[in-house]
Amino acid sequence: MAISNRQLIYANTPSPAIDPSLTNGTFKLNTTSIPDQIPNDKVLVRVHYLSLDPAMRQWLTAKRVMRGQSIAQVIAVGSGLQSQYKVGDWVVAYSGWQEYCLLGPKEAQKVVVPPGCQPTDAMSVLGMTGLTAYFGMIEVGQPKPGDTVVVSGAAGATGMVAGQIAKVKGAKRVVGIAGSADKCEFLVKELGFDAAINYKDKDWKKQLKEATPEYIDVYFDNVGGEILDACLARAQKDSRFAICGAISQYNSAKPQGPASFMNVISQRITMKGFIVFDYAKKYDIALKDLSTWLTQGKIKRKEHIIRGGLEAAPQGLVSLYEGANTGKMMVEVAPVSEAIGAKAKL
Amino acid sequence: MAISNRQLIYANTPSPAIDPSLTNGTFKLNTTSIPDQIPNDKVLVRVHYLSLDPAMRQWLTAKRVMRGQSIAQVIAVGSGLQSQYKVGDWVVAYSGWQEYCLLGPKEAQKVVVPPGCQPTDAMSVLGMTGLTAYFGMIEVGQPKPGDTVVVSGAAGATGMVAGQIAKVKGAKRVVGIAGSADKCEFLVKELGFDAAINYKDKDWKKQLKEATPEYIDVYFDNVGGEILDACLARAQKDSRFAICGAISQYNSAKPQGPASFMNVISQRITMKGFIVFDYAKKYDIALKDLSTWLTQGKIKRKEHIIRGGLEAAPQGLVSLYEGANTGKMMVEVAPVSEAIGAKAKL
Repeated sequence: MAISNRQLIYANTPSPAIDPSLTNGTFKLNTTSIPDQIPNDKVLVRVHYLSLDPAMRQWLTAKRVMRGQSIAQVIAVGSGLQSQYKVGDWVVAYSGWQEYCLLGPKEAQKVVVPPGCQPTDAMSVLGMTGLTAYFGMIEVGQPKPGDTVVVSGAAGATGMVAGQIAKVKGAKRVVGIAGSADKCEFLVKELGFDAAINYKDKDWKKQLKEATPEYIDVYFDNVGGEILDACLARAQKDSRFAICGAISQYNSAKPQGPASFMNVISQRITMKGFIVFDYAKKYDIALKDLSTWLTQGKIKRKEHIIRGGLEAAPQGLVSLYEGANTGKMMVEVAPVSEAIGAKAKL
Repeated sequence: MAISNRQLIYANTPSPAIDPSLTNGTFKLNTTSIPDQIPNDKVLVRVHYLSLDPAMRQWLTAKRVMRGQSIAQVIAVGSGLQSQYKVGDWVVAYSGWQEYCLLGPKEAQKVVVPPGCQPTDAMSVLGMTGLTAYFGMIEVGQPKPGDTVVVSGAAGATGMVAGQIAKVKGAKRVVGIAGSADKCEFLVKELGFDAAINYKDKDWKKQLKEATPEYIDVYFDNVGGEILDACLARAQKDSRFAICGAISQYNSAKPQGPASFMNVISQRITMKGFIVFDYAKKYDIALKDLSTWLTQGKIKRKEHIIRGGLEAAPQGLVSLYEGANTGKMMVEVAPVSEAIGAKAKL
């Protein structure tokens, strides 16, 4: 019996905001069917959790099934792959925004769950966001004992890990910048940040100044715009600015550069943009460190799960850009209770 | 007989442009007298050439004799310094904008003129601008054989040396950006740049694109603003942007950040601000290289001398910000013909 597969297609260019409506909005719903017969060199997976990521705004290029990573479960295996996969295996894959997907062996990465970890970690602390935090902080930011480290988007999937890594590496003060009092409380009380600033407070710049009495040695930037600007104005001499993202600018028709850019000269700042894929050769080392820290409780996980199935993804993405999430944002396409043998694994 | 000493005092804050008038302008003329008796631990120098530098806009802080470097000649030596200095020695010093100055031994650096070089080189290729070009290009830009290197403010004292150093280091293409057709011709015909772009041409961005078919590996920035922005938009992956100055922004009441800043992420650009003084421990090596290249003709000098005495300095500074100079801009406070034994030395 062919499986009916619902998918979300990128259909209309945002102007410039993403329109989450499924009627003439940015995405449209489409239904295909996946034939019974699995090709020899493919596995059929069922998508359980879609990842929502700030970079997605830049993935709106080809008008096709929306690109995206997911945690999925193998439900059928082509005859040529039966030594590699079995039904019930969990994988992480760029399945895109759909309920089912046929994947080649290189497209479906089996999730090996280290002791004390869980499959969805493969999409957060032990996934792209955790690795992004790791390389941005360790290779670009290079915090040293005694340093003051500031992280923007600090309650997001990448930021929360970046700040915790700085602590592991002996930073003297780790300061998070986030968009609500709840997020700030989470950062300080649950994750052990030394201070957190709600950038929606009127006096946030004053708070930033007070929270960085010895200025900023390392800044991990997820947001760009005005917050990057304020951190440039608080930069310590020879500071390192790891430029990871600029979520404040992605939906802007006319991006703004940092007006305090001249501090790059006066404070001899190194600003370096980076993309996690450039460090692929070091993923193994990074994942070993991250899973150790996760197991030891030195890094804590936090998931923000959107319910409502595939259709909830567009509104979820809009919410991500509005800063609704604390921790890694995912869309639950199919609950764990429906997974094959899931209770034993998740 | 006491010597009458005219000096220019920084008197009024620019609003925001520098006003070169000596009547209620940014600077005012003052006359003091220097007593006959030289203190034991001082030398008295006569200033011959004042250096005009883009950084001066940021030196307008204390309301005192305008800060500035000069090439000066020792005309009297205190009794305690006669083993170190003799009348007629040339020195480079932060004398400020005045005709005469009393200097301590650490404030007057004797100019040792390498064979084939001349005393005013100590304020250009073998001075702060040449050293700035050297460290910015070699330590920050790090051009490799085959690289495309772009220099802005390329006909200025620092830029012209920076571009020539890139050639010495084997860059495949060196492209200068300057503000007139004459400057561009100078860069290509006299200095051997591969291309030069007049940013006052309407189609300068198109010219920049055509001049960088393999994009930009190293950008040495003296100007900031729109040109930095255009170079960010042409950046090659893993490119290095040496941020030396932002002359387009110094006189701006509201500086603009680079709007193409997000390319820092997509192209993994490293932008590093630097200040020459941080490399003081390496000056000896740099000066050895620079004087060798100058003697060998691999680097050519170019001086732009403003006549009219001390009073011409404020207008000279305004002209510097207007981009009037090709090469190192200096104000002739006293002609060489008036120097002690000068004909033999200059």
